[in-house]
Amino acid sequence: MKIALDAMGGDFAPGATVEGAILAAEKLAGKAEILLIGDEGLIKAELQKHGYTSPRISVIHTTQVIAMGEHPTKALTQKPDSSIAKGYALLKAREVDAFASAGNTGAMLVGALFSVKAVEGFLRPCIASFAPKLNGGIGVIVDVGANADCKPEVLEQFGEIGSIYAEEVLKIPNPKVGLMSLGEEEGKGNMATQAAHQLLKANTSINFVGNIEGRDLFNDKADVIVCDGYTGNVILKMAESFYDILKEKNISDSFIDRLDYEAVGGTPILGINGNAIIGHGASSPGAICNMVQQAYQMATSDVSEKFKKTYSA
Amino acid sequence: MKIALDAMGGDFAPGATVEGAILAAEKLAGKAEILLIGDEGLIKAELQKHGYTSPRISVIHTTQVIAMGEHPTKALTQKPDSSIAKGYALLKAREVDAFASAGNTGAMLVGALFSVKAVEGFLRPCIASFAPKLNGGIGVIVDVGANADCKPEVLEQFGEIGSIYAEEVLKIPNPKVGLMSLGEEEGKGNMATQAAHQLLKANTSINFVGNIEGRDLFNDKADVIVCDGYTGNVILKMAESFYDILKEKNISDSFIDRLDYEAVGGTPILGINGNAIIGHGASSPGAICNMVQQAYQMATSDVSEKFKKTYSA
Repeated sequence: MKIALDAMGGDFAPGATVEGAILAAEKLAGKAEILLIGDEGLIKAELQKHGYTSPRISVIHTTQVIAMGEHPTKALTQKPDSSIAKGYALLKAREVDAFASAGNTGAMLVGALFSVKAVEGFLRPCIASFAPKLNGGIGVIVDVGANADCKPEVLEQFGEIGSIYAEEVLKIPNPKVGLMSLGEEEGKGNMATQAAHQLLKANTSINFVGNIEGRDLFNDKADVIVCDGYTGNVILKMAESFYDILKEKNISDSFIDRLDYEAVGGTPILGINGNAIIGHGASSPGAICNMVQQAYQMATSDVSEKFKKTYSA
Repeated sequence: MKIALDAMGGDFAPGATVEGAILAAEKLAGKAEILLIGDEGLIKAELQKHGYTSPRISVIHTTQVIAMGEHPTKALTQKPDSSIAKGYALLKAREVDAFASAGNTGAMLVGALFSVKAVEGFLRPCIASFAPKLNGGIGVIVDVGANADCKPEVLEQFGEIGSIYAEEVLKIPNPKVGLMSLGEEEGKGNMATQAAHQLLKANTSINFVGNIEGRDLFNDKADVIVCDGYTGNVILKMAESFYDILKEKNISDSFIDRLDYEAVGGTPILGINGNAIIGHGASSPGAICNMVQQAYQMATSDVSEKFKKTYSA
């Protein structure tokens, strides 16, 4: 198994990415090889710093970098030899089993759609994030930012794909799918969620448990939390800020510590023909390591093949 | 000054409401009188329990109660002698300066529109809630549930009315108005927020500071947080759940304690011709007391008259 990692992506690259890759390479020793994509000179210098010479990490040289603020479509077109473009080219050619980057989120999304493309029949590829549960489990939130406005049938597919991810990657049997709304009753919600409720309710391929509320993010009402990308993004950033506030106050706890994005790793792109995952811009080596392990889990479970089978059927 | 309180509203009424009224009556002694609306026998029995005989509290007898689960419009039509209907009748007749209830939220909203009515020119009356700020201040969130779907011009008015409330009631000079979105850049957001951004930016009556994100709820980026009622409701309930989780874990802190809805009191209805405020269904005596004091502040600042002047101009 081969995992490609964008060595140039993220605020602290290539230092943090190379260090994270080393951590992950050791954890995945014998199971996966890591391909670091980026400036070979810079990457090798970082590997040398750590005295790392294991063949568990190899380097793919690229000459260009897409910066955090760049326009995704323009950047991808103008920089064919960027680490993100190269990572997707390898993913498309099936030379790697997964691609991870903490770089430009927009370029990661657009790159996915340009290269491996959306699964046929899946309306709007999306990005998922995770909510630690008070009971020790984990929930998946779909979407957290790729699609700000969502039609009801798009929300329905988020429920399906989130359910597949929860079952295949998180190993949650028969995952409970909840629709984020402003009240438990099925008539509550905005127009899109009200209509999506009916579609999800009629969908026999998932275990729909009805509407959930903002207070249910961390309890065990739902394993899959369905919402549009605008709402999911607000939820995600609010949860992150809670962690930051408590950390600032030196308040620590086994649950609170799991709110740290670092503990999670990255946000997978769902609904594309390949396993791709986007890391937090501020990723530390530990976050990079977790993201690479997550990419490995996605590749092992072959979840993108499951998506394809579901929608081609 | 007279404040009407629905003695029958809330999960623990009339015990909690009468006890809360007593607490508030003593705090507002010499400044405001409280009118308890509801079953006179029940209310008097509660007052007797506390040995309370002060004329600071008087009782308005009603024979009907709108239960928490009842359909608002039907209930108000079928129960003209309910405590909520009576409270609004008194507010409309200007026999009281404010009306507060921890009862059926929908009935409180519909009752406002049926009786004192929306301010002319104000498109969608809304409900506001509060975010404690890390710097010790407080922010106002508009809307938190009255309007799940909002057009851009409705969001613009939420910015205006939230700004008036922040300035007049919370005494924040030139309050900063932020639009909740999924990124700071003005092009980020769903379709409604993208369009609302342009309207708010062009609005010279407010101090618009641009988009804010989920992580900015508790920092000092904005004093007024504009969002649709669906998003505001998710935010509010998520913040409540954080408080509940930390309380459960016996984690306490001066900031965290201010996340308790009890510390806030209630959520005022903005954009109607009168001062009305809705309490949390689970209101304790302390929460009722705070809500009554909040109602007093609204009445003192005469904020609903300010709304009227703004939109009739």
